[in-house]
Amino acid sequence: MKLVSFLVGDLPSWGLQVGDQVIDLGRRYGAQYPDLRSAIGSPLLHDPTLSDLPADHLLADLRLLPPIPEPGKILCVGLNYKAHAAEGGFPIPVFPQVFTRFADTLVGSGAPMIKPAMSDDFDFEGELAIVIGRGGRHIPASSALDHVFGYTCFNDGSVRDVQFKHFLIAGKNFPSTGPLGPCIVTTDEIPDPSRLHLSTSINGVVVQSKGIDDMICDVAGIIAYISSWTELRPGDVIATGTPEGVGFARKPPLWLRPGDLVEVEISKIGRLSNPVQAGA
Amino acid sequence: MKLVSFLVGDLPSWGLQVGDQVIDLGRRYGAQYPDLRSAIGSPLLHDPTLSDLPADHLLADLRLLPPIPEPGKILCVGLNYKAHAAEGGFPIPVFPQVFTRFADTLVGSGAPMIKPAMSDDFDFEGELAIVIGRGGRHIPASSALDHVFGYTCFNDGSVRDVQFKHFLIAGKNFPSTGPLGPCIVTTDEIPDPSRLHLSTSINGVVVQSKGIDDMICDVAGIIAYISSWTELRPGDVIATGTPEGVGFARKPPLWLRPGDLVEVEISKIGRLSNPVQAGA
Repeated sequence: MKLVSFLVGDLPSWGLQVGDQVIDLGRRYGAQYPDLRSAIGSPLLHDPTLSDLPADHLLADLRLLPPIPEPGKILCVGLNYKAHAAEGGFPIPVFPQVFTRFADTLVGSGAPMIKPAMSDDFDFEGELAIVIGRGGRHIPASSALDHVFGYTCFNDGSVRDVQFKHFLIAGKNFPSTGPLGPCIVTTDEIPDPSRLHLSTSINGVVVQSKGIDDMICDVAGIIAYISSWTELRPGDVIATGTPEGVGFARKPPLWLRPGDLVEVEISKIGRLSNPVQAGA
Repeated sequence: MKLVSFLVGDLPSWGLQVGDQVIDLGRRYGAQYPDLRSAIGSPLLHDPTLSDLPADHLLADLRLLPPIPEPGKILCVGLNYKAHAAEGGFPIPVFPQVFTRFADTLVGSGAPMIKPAMSDDFDFEGELAIVIGRGGRHIPASSALDHVFGYTCFNDGSVRDVQFKHFLIAGKNFPSTGPLGPCIVTTDEIPDPSRLHLSTSINGVVVQSKGIDDMICDVAGIIAYISSWTELRPGDVIATGTPEGVGFARKPPLWLRPGDLVEVEISKIGRLSNPVQAGA
């Protein structure tokens, strides 16, 4: 099942993507489930006739939102691929290095990601993101995949000079720097996330290409670790880290410039596509 | 004006504290202002006759919540007092070191702060917290104090082995480790926060005592800096850092143990008082 959140005019809604069309579930069931997050775990999403409903929109006509527009928690794992840690000159961490983002850093596929005026060191990071389906604390790794609702693509847009000279959290939390989407693919279609493949391209040129099985801490391990110190809830988003190939580690560095198109594509999920735009 | 959030039975409300009594504004105006955050900037809080309403509760009868129970953003400045940076062996930072907390880490005054089972290295950090009144981005320091709604006390309860051996964010985000309160005192009563004095005590013994004027980056500078990379909104909470005297830097270390009572007191605001309890 592919699920999307979007704007119809200026009104937010959400629905089921079927091919190049979308069944608007927010319009039909919004009184009970005003957003996709509230529908996670509901009987509605287990109704096998859901995809028989008539489509309401062409996907191409919609402005996509982040599939979960307001996650309760956004957690990001840093340095979770060996070659990426190495390219940045960092040791391989013993524990997952988890930082946070605010919801206002997210944008949907198609929306511009904003290079702030105060920096030209604007970088991309293609990542697999987990969307939590069933919450919990102290979740064992052995059952952690049962807590996943689905997967989507993430671009952890990073303002590197601020990240490295000020502090990690600041460089990762500029508004509209974190594209998420285009859709959530539920776990029935992705029983084993380690078999996915990720690639990132800028203006059509591939800059990152990696199997998800190259992660240091895998999806189950990440959920187990994070839930050892914070409670996870349905709709929480966990970005699992980026492989090698990011801009700051290249010689010369490859910075994103206004007008660039950045795309993160993951097999079985789709392509998260965002133009870069100059902002405040 | 002193404002509090609290439970009446199991129902959350908020109101105006007058002496040892509370005028329940949630009960009267909850349809329009369901919580204190939603009332920030409202005409209601500028009504000079508000304190003439009859009191509804004795303060001592209420279970206090964090004065803003669900801040949109909780930002914390690390290493913002020279002697605290020195006691931990850290260099004085060039930029404020800002990290984040989730709302489920907060508890009100009187509620237990929870020592997690996985660690005995549970530490206190008494701090002044800012509550934002008027939001904004790129707020100049010269007008930053106009964006403050009020001030409260914070105890940045820290799981030190996790903080130092895993990663900062994990050690600062265990559930129910961050007491906030007891009340917000609005800026009409605190025009100059640098004149406040903070003290922290454990079981009645003072362990931190410092003038707020000893901060490296002052309240206006913190707001200006943070708003350079994230948008602030009404009800956002910024913890301004702790002075020297924390537990991990002592020889031997002074860890919080179940049964301890930790109190953070700031002049003109009041005393944030929390027992330590063992948890999961």
